[in-house]
Amino acid sequence: MPSDVFTHTVADLRTLGGQRVWSLMVSLFGDLAQAEGAGIDGPVLSRIMTAMQIRPEATRVALHRLRNDGWIASEKRGRISRHTLTPHGRKLSAEASPVIYADPYAGPEEWSLVLLPPDATASDALGQAGYIQILPRLYAKPPAASLPAGALELQAKDAPPWLREAVEPAWLAEDYAALARTLGELTERLPRDASLSAVETAVLRCLVVHNWRRLVLKHNWPPRALVSLDWAGHRAHILVADLLQRFPRPSLSDIGCSRN
Amino acid sequence: MPSDVFTHTVADLRTLGGQRVWSLMVSLFGDLAQAEGAGIDGPVLSRIMTAMQIRPEATRVALHRLRNDGWIASEKRGRISRHTLTPHGRKLSAEASPVIYADPYAGPEEWSLVLLPPDATASDALGQAGYIQILPRLYAKPPAASLPAGALELQAKDAPPWLREAVEPAWLAEDYAALARTLGELTERLPRDASLSAVETAVLRCLVVHNWRRLVLKHNWPPRALVSLDWAGHRAHILVADLLQRFPRPSLSDIGCSRN
Repeated sequence: MPSDVFTHTVADLRTLGGQRVWSLMVSLFGDLAQAEGAGIDGPVLSRIMTAMQIRPEATRVALHRLRNDGWIASEKRGRISRHTLTPHGRKLSAEASPVIYADPYAGPEEWSLVLLPPDATASDALGQAGYIQILPRLYAKPPAASLPAGALELQAKDAPPWLREAVEPAWLAEDYAALARTLGELTERLPRDASLSAVETAVLRCLVVHNWRRLVLKHNWPPRALVSLDWAGHRAHILVADLLQRFPRPSLSDIGCSRN
Repeated sequence: MPSDVFTHTVADLRTLGGQRVWSLMVSLFGDLAQAEGAGIDGPVLSRIMTAMQIRPEATRVALHRLRNDGWIASEKRGRISRHTLTPHGRKLSAEASPVIYADPYAGPEEWSLVLLPPDATASDALGQAGYIQILPRLYAKPPAASLPAGALELQAKDAPPWLREAVEPAWLAEDYAALARTLGELTERLPRDASLSAVETAVLRCLVVHNWRRLVLKHNWPPRALVSLDWAGHRAHILVADLLQRFPRPSLSDIGCSRN
C-alpha cells in the first residue's frame, strides 16, 4: 500500500476521537493477542504503535497504566519484554468480543417487546441483559435474554420505522455517522487489490476495532429484526465486518522481524 | 312474588345511586320500547313508575324534560297519551344496547395491545373506538376496532393478572362492587320458582338495566380475554345477564289492563 494512503488512513481513523493510547492498546491486545497464551513482544508492539503514529513515551505510559489496572502483565524473556493480557483483562476482552465481532446479519428474525408489571422498578439488570427501553415499562427484548419476573412478552410482525428508530441510541447518532463516513471513504480509497503488510494490517484492524468498540459497547445493540438498514450504526457495522474479513489477523511473527 | 320482598328489592336497587327519574325512564324505554313503532301508553307508564316508588309528579317532570331534550315524543290517542322514543332517542338507545346487553362470554379469545408512534397525540377517537390505555402510548385494542395510523399491533398469549387489573376502571371499583353485591343478594333472595307479574318484571328489569347501564357506559369494556373473573364488573355482568334471561321482557299489554 502506498505509504501516503496508509498515513492518511491512520490519521482519519485517529481523528474520530476517544483515542487514548491505553484504550487503543486494549483494542490491539483484544484483536491480536486475546487467546490464552498469546502475547506481544516489545519490539512488535513498538513497531505497531509507531505505525499508528504514537510516540514511544506515550506507549510506555499506557503500558504502565494497563499494568497498574491489572489489564496487562509484562515479562522479561532474555533481552526483550513480552506483554500479555492478564486473566482479568482476557476475561473483559472475551466478554466484549461477541458484541464487537458480531456478524451484522446474524440473529433470529423473530423479535418481541416486553411489558413489565406496574410495580416493577427500572432495574440496571435489564440494561445489562441487553434490554432497550421504549416506554417506562416497555422494552425491546434481546433474543437470548430471559424474561423478567411477572413480565408479559409481546410479539409483532414487521417493525415500523419509528420503532426501529426508537431502539437506536440517539446520543450516538453523530458518532456513528462519522464512523460510517470515515470507514466508507477508507473502503473506497483502498485499492480493491490492496495488499497490506502485516504491520499495516495490525494497525488498520486495531483502529477499526477501536473506533467501533468505543461506540458499540456504550449501548445495547438492537435485535436484528429491529435494526434499520438506513441507520449509520448498521452501515458502520457492515463496513467494520467487511474490513475485518478483508484484512484477517496478521501473524505477530510476521511483524517483528520483517522489513514491513 | 311477596310484595315485601319486591318492595325490598326495588328499594335496594334504587339506593345504588344515580337514580334521576328521567335517566331511569331512558333505561325503561330502551328496555321495553326501543323497537321502531313501539311506545308506552300513559297508564302503563304510570303503573310501572308507581311500582318503582316514583311519585306521579316526578314522572311528569321527567317526561317533560325528555321531551325537551328530544328523547321522547308524546302523542294523544283519544283520552290517553302514548310515549315513544324519538328517532334521536332510539338511535342513542340502539348504540348503547350492544354494550348494555352484551353476553359476558362473547367475543374472541384473541387479544392484542397497540403501540402508537412517538409523535401520536392521545386522541379522544381512540377512547371512542373502545381502546383502553395501559401506558402513555400503549393501549388494549378492542377486537373489532381498526388500527390507528402508524400503530404497531402486539400479540401475546395469557394476560397476567396485573394487565387484567390495568384495564379495569379503578374509579368504578366501588360502584361495581356495590352493584355485584346487591344483585347477588337479590338473586339469592328471589325464590328459584319466583314468578313475577308483568309490572314487577318491567320494574325489576328497568332497575337492573339502569344500574348496569350507568356504570358500563362510563368506560370501555375490556376485551373478553383481558377480563378478570374476579373483577366485580365481570361478576355484576354475569348477574345482570342471568336476571335479564330469567325475567324476559313482559308484554306491555299485560301491564295496562290486568290487576297486577
